[in-house]
Amino acid sequence: MDPITFDSCCYRIHGAPVHLYSGEFHYFRVPKADWRRRMELFREAGGNCLATYVPWLIHEPSEGEFVFGGPDGKHDLEDFLVTAREAGLWVIARPGPYQYSELVYDGLPRWLCDNYPQLRARNFQGNDFRRSSISYLHPLFLEKTAAWFDQVCPLLARHCVGRGGAIAAVQLDNEMAGIHRWFGGYDYNAETMQFGRENGRFAAFLRQRFGSVAEMNRLWGSDYASFGAARPPAPGDTSTTTALRRAKDYCDFYYGSIGEYSCRLAEMLRGRGIDAPLITNSPNPGSNLWFLETVQAVPPPFLLGSDHYYTLDQNWRQNNPTPQYAVEAFFSCETLRLLGYPPSVFELPGGSASDWPPVTPVDAKACYLANVALGMKGSNFYIYTGGPNIPGTGTTTDLYDYGAAVGAAGEVRPLYQSIKDVGLFLRNNAWLAEAELEAGCRFALDLEMLRTAEVWQAPGEFALSAATAAEFLRKGPLTTAFCAGLSPACCNLGADDWAADVTTPLVVVCASAMAADKQRRLIRFLEAGGKALLLPVLPTVDERFEPCTLLADYLGAAAGEKNANPAPRISVAGVVNILQNGQSFCWPALPVGADLIGVDEVSGSPVCWQRATCNGGRAIVLGSRYLHAMREHERLLAALLQRLDVAPRLQCSNPNVWCTLRTAGKRSALFAMNLYSAPMSCELRCQPAWSDRWLELGHYDLAAMEVRPLLLGA
Amino acid sequence: MDPITFDSCCYRIHGAPVHLYSGEFHYFRVPKADWRRRMELFREAGGNCLATYVPWLIHEPSEGEFVFGGPDGKHDLEDFLVTAREAGLWVIARPGPYQYSELVYDGLPRWLCDNYPQLRARNFQGNDFRRSSISYLHPLFLEKTAAWFDQVCPLLARHCVGRGGAIAAVQLDNEMAGIHRWFGGYDYNAETMQFGRENGRFAAFLRQRFGSVAEMNRLWGSDYASFGAARPPAPGDTSTTTALRRAKDYCDFYYGSIGEYSCRLAEMLRGRGIDAPLITNSPNPGSNLWFLETVQAVPPPFLLGSDHYYTLDQNWRQNNPTPQYAVEAFFSCETLRLLGYPPSVFELPGGSASDWPPVTPVDAKACYLANVALGMKGSNFYIYTGGPNIPGTGTTTDLYDYGAAVGAAGEVRPLYQSIKDVGLFLRNNAWLAEAELEAGCRFALDLEMLRTAEVWQAPGEFALSAATAAEFLRKGPLTTAFCAGLSPACCNLGADDWAADVTTPLVVVCASAMAADKQRRLIRFLEAGGKALLLPVLPTVDERFEPCTLLADYLGAAAGEKNANPAPRISVAGVVNILQNGQSFCWPALPVGADLIGVDEVSGSPVCWQRATCNGGRAIVLGSRYLHAMREHERLLAALLQRLDVAPRLQCSNPNVWCTLRTAGKRSALFAMNLYSAPMSCELRCQPAWSDRWLELGHYDLAAMEVRPLLLGA
Repeated sequence: MDPITFDSCCYRIHGAPVHLYSGEFHYFRVPKADWRRRMELFREAGGNCLATYVPWLIHEPSEGEFVFGGPDGKHDLEDFLVTAREAGLWVIARPGPYQYSELVYDGLPRWLCDNYPQLRARNFQGNDFRRSSISYLHPLFLEKTAAWFDQVCPLLARHCVGRGGAIAAVQLDNEMAGIHRWFGGYDYNAETMQFGRENGRFAAFLRQRFGSVAEMNRLWGSDYASFGAARPPAPGDTSTTTALRRAKDYCDFYYGSIGEYSCRLAEMLRGRGIDAPLITNSPNPGSNLWFLETVQAVPPPFLLGSDHYYTLDQNWRQNNPTPQYAVEAFFSCETLRLLGYPPSVFELPGGSASDWPPVTPVDAKACYLANVALGMKGSNFYIYTGGPNIPGTGTTTDLYDYGAAVGAAGEVRPLYQSIKDVGLFLRNNAWLAEAELEAGCRFALDLEMLRTAEVWQAPGEFALSAATAAEFLRKGPLTTAFCAGLSPACCNLGADDWAADVTTPLVVVCASAMAADKQRRLIRFLEAGGKALLLPVLPTVDERFEPCTLLADYLGAAAGEKNANPAPRISVAGVVNILQNGQSFCWPALPVGADLIGVDEVSGSPVCWQRATCNGGRAIVLGSRYLHAMREHERLLAALLQRLDVAPRLQCSNPNVWCTLRTAGKRSALFAMNLYSAPMSCELRCQPAWSDRWLELGHYDLAAMEVRPLLLGA
Repeated sequence: MDPITFDSCCYRIHGAPVHLYSGEFHYFRVPKADWRRRMELFREAGGNCLATYVPWLIHEPSEGEFVFGGPDGKHDLEDFLVTAREAGLWVIARPGPYQYSELVYDGLPRWLCDNYPQLRARNFQGNDFRRSSISYLHPLFLEKTAAWFDQVCPLLARHCVGRGGAIAAVQLDNEMAGIHRWFGGYDYNAETMQFGRENGRFAAFLRQRFGSVAEMNRLWGSDYASFGAARPPAPGDTSTTTALRRAKDYCDFYYGSIGEYSCRLAEMLRGRGIDAPLITNSPNPGSNLWFLETVQAVPPPFLLGSDHYYTLDQNWRQNNPTPQYAVEAFFSCETLRLLGYPPSVFELPGGSASDWPPVTPVDAKACYLANVALGMKGSNFYIYTGGPNIPGTGTTTDLYDYGAAVGAAGEVRPLYQSIKDVGLFLRNNAWLAEAELEAGCRFALDLEMLRTAEVWQAPGEFALSAATAAEFLRKGPLTTAFCAGLSPACCNLGADDWAADVTTPLVVVCASAMAADKQRRLIRFLEAGGKALLLPVLPTVDERFEPCTLLADYLGAAAGEKNANPAPRISVAGVVNILQNGQSFCWPALPVGADLIGVDEVSGSPVCWQRATCNGGRAIVLGSRYLHAMREHERLLAALLQRLDVAPRLQCSNPNVWCTLRTAGKRSALFAMNLYSAPMSCELRCQPAWSDRWLELGHYDLAAMEVRPLLLGA
């Protein structure tokens, strides 16, 4: 058996569940003489793993000249791996090609960026984004990468865990697609994407998607003679349905190319002896779905994680991890779990790229525990410890410090105690690694449409775009569910694993488009006795934007139309005058056989109705789209889910204190999160699955930015 | 003498300095039976004033039908004014036309918005923004407003302070221009703006600005036959210098129309017997400069204030008042002071439009004290107390509560204690009203260019746009000055009042455009022995974008050019490798006679140099544009200002704790602000003007979101 394994629940070492607790530690920055001491400090803090970039930039300073080892320790990757092994720490190696890491050219060799401009990613007009934003699948870039891997992989392979070494995982590239999206958009490098070639990459995608040129032309409103003749659409044009289709297709094609790139890197690593699991990291909680094709394409063992910063400079949304951050982190952890992985945060803030605003030990600890509360099963502090940059390689200051727990000079900072508090908590409660969220309700995610939000911003010819639906999901009912203590979890509308549970009600935020198989799955669920809240519209088209009203037809209803009343007064389920804060929807008449639950009191139009299905199943449809703001929103969601027999797992008297209940066997942890800058008090009670009664936990006073785990049972 | 007066320093009642401490209290919402008790509660909390909208919507429910008085109290404005007078509170009356206040149609009568679509503000294409976004100067709107004022003004006039009544001020409209800017942009209603008419409003503006059609055509690159023939420019086009000129001209014209509207309202009020001072409120700290023409146009007594919310819903930048908020609040208070007014915040958060995220008592108190620390001399909580909306008039919930200090049902909430703590602090320290900032350095503001930032986003043919300069000012050196404890204040580059002080160094963030008179004023200042830091470029054109290099010529230098080196290493004044985070500038060669202070170590180009002028005067020019992030930025600014003989008034050991020192006579308050969600500690010392030595204040531990005023002297 492999010493370190993982499944969608957690990491295991020799079969025993464990939280992967890693810290970023750059051998090329930290003085070698202090490696061992700093490693031991990290083990004392609960650490069991380290991560390091292996920068191509520093190891191949000029083309074909490779530098490993050497007296200064800066290039001594191998000694680092040996030292980590001796210190009892696993290592995640991140050999690129990209590192970022505040290195010049994002960690690519200078010669590569300067001497090969043809490699650069390009926008639709053909202009390059910037010197170090490369077109991943450009054959010459893959060739240069292979030459780099030829040198570094044998070294890494010797130290993989299967051969008794420290390396537990090797990372593919770094925050893939980030250097495109942040600096230009999707890549349109013609040589890479092979536009205009009948057997090219773009034509192959179209052939696979459409089968026939006629079908492509029908859906695109085009008249191309062949797949090879098809051109990519200009970005941003979604003014017509045919343009919207093309935009979505290019989005899918682009992310497909990320999947192909990941595969190519994986093949290169595997072909050079790397037998440890492969991982990769999404740049941020909102970008996990960039990797839908990647997770399909890369052969296991492979794992997708995410990076969960809350501030890196003064332009970030907030200086501290807020409830809004928690929603994003939850969404990220849940999507990773639904994709089959133990939710892993490969960059969890261990400081910040900026000295100001500061990452304080109090905020950071709240961030770490909040991520645990929200499902994180593995983590890596970026960074655990710093040191001086090799001259000429850094883009920031000469000391790469990050305000890390252990500073560049080796000094132990107060942040270390936060890392240690959490690390020892996790080590002492290893059972938590297996603990799963106890769900009172489930939010069904249409992962494909959530990603399509990137290109489908304006509604166009439809009632509700994917972007608006995606924003509503997070800022509307998901936020409400946390405020109301409704114990939300997520499930994947594209999979069958959740449908057998007809007890826990489902919340489905629908855009106007939903694939037919997803609509059918929802119908089967309702037929089998499932209970679902559908909002704020019913889909009218499938994922290709072709008419598809299976779900609405099943419910005997129209899809919902825009409420034209400029000053509606929406009252639903006894909750009066519910603030909308956005376009809401109504039905011209109550569907036949449905029960009326809510109306616009001004126009009299139905805005919420319920229909019984079979076997006790029922659906509630609510046309309300809102930004969570008022107590009324909590009362609304609670009242509707009560009609669907919701059984929340916990109760918290303070809607500002968000809670999760995580259970493994007869043990549970209730996490009470105060993610505000002021103290909060609350009364707490919960009923874990193993308890036949509600546990009265009493009164709690939480300090500003305190996340309190309450351990229950066993 | 008027019982209540004001100047640029503070408010005075019968000549004695006082902080105007007001609370919003809506007679049309709060139950009449509870008015007196809630007023007394506010007086007990230190209050001396109330404010209320007087909604046109509720007092003229159908055209020509006016409702005042009545048994329910909801329309009993007069009794409210009498009750306030009896309770010993002044009143700020806000009779519109607009109120907003979460009223339908923003407080305008429904019949007005529904029946007169021709009144609506329109975009360049001629489409209206929305039903209740009116074109202010439309003659029919002014006529309807006059009819409303005919009814309400006599009532208000009877209760003005000059006649022994409660009304200390009457507000012109509400957050003017907001209902345009937020919902469409500048107003292009052709009937209002009178495009195409030789004696129309737009032609008159052009005639006044250009003098001759030939001059207009020269600057605009146009060939109009007359001013009347000139068309407004399409918004957003600044691709050429002529387009940029037209865009700035329309911006100035639009805000000129706001000034004209203000004047018309003032005339209407004055003409109907209102003899109390008039006020108006800028929508937010960033919009004060929308009113440059207004403050010129409205006859005194008139006062411009601002609204300083930090959150109203989950989409706001932060849930708590952060240092970033403090920069905006400081900037707002300083601009109000420079325009000649006691900095007044007419809407300071007394709750939030949303129940979630919450406005906590701790955060709110920090907000209030931070605003005092940053110069606020008058304030009005929005809202102090709530109540039920008149049915059919509210856009939110039926109870208009805001989580206010005194709730809709009259319950006293914890927030009341925050209001009381601050109110009694201000009442017990009335001397603070006269206290002025002790400045270690001064940031010279080019108010015209700061407003031009709205239209001059991309640099176009110039090195640095007004938008980039404005952002750099706030997020660069002003933030750095607070972190470094350099005691910044602001002064108005368009006025002479600051130039006689050649001791306190000046920091001038220049866009590529600066009016000739401002360049000349800077030259006179340097000639007279003044010391200035100029960054990140020197201006090359005047405010009309015509060549004007007076300042650069005086310094014998070019204006600075973009540093083409993609990986510069900037070291200045002994501070090594300073993070830029943005395009910086350099000089091809050191200007003759200048001393080199900093270079790009990679390219060798000068990036910072100093030149002596006359009488001990000197200028330092720094090409660095950065986002404040690193300790190096503090060291850089401190080192350069030290060369200009800066004398900071305080020292704080913790760069995250921002301090201001405010002094009146022999008394001072040092405000130490911790605007983070975690505790902070610091050592403090200061030297007020009245002290011949530094005062060692010792060690302070500040709780999360604690603003501590330390009272010194007398």
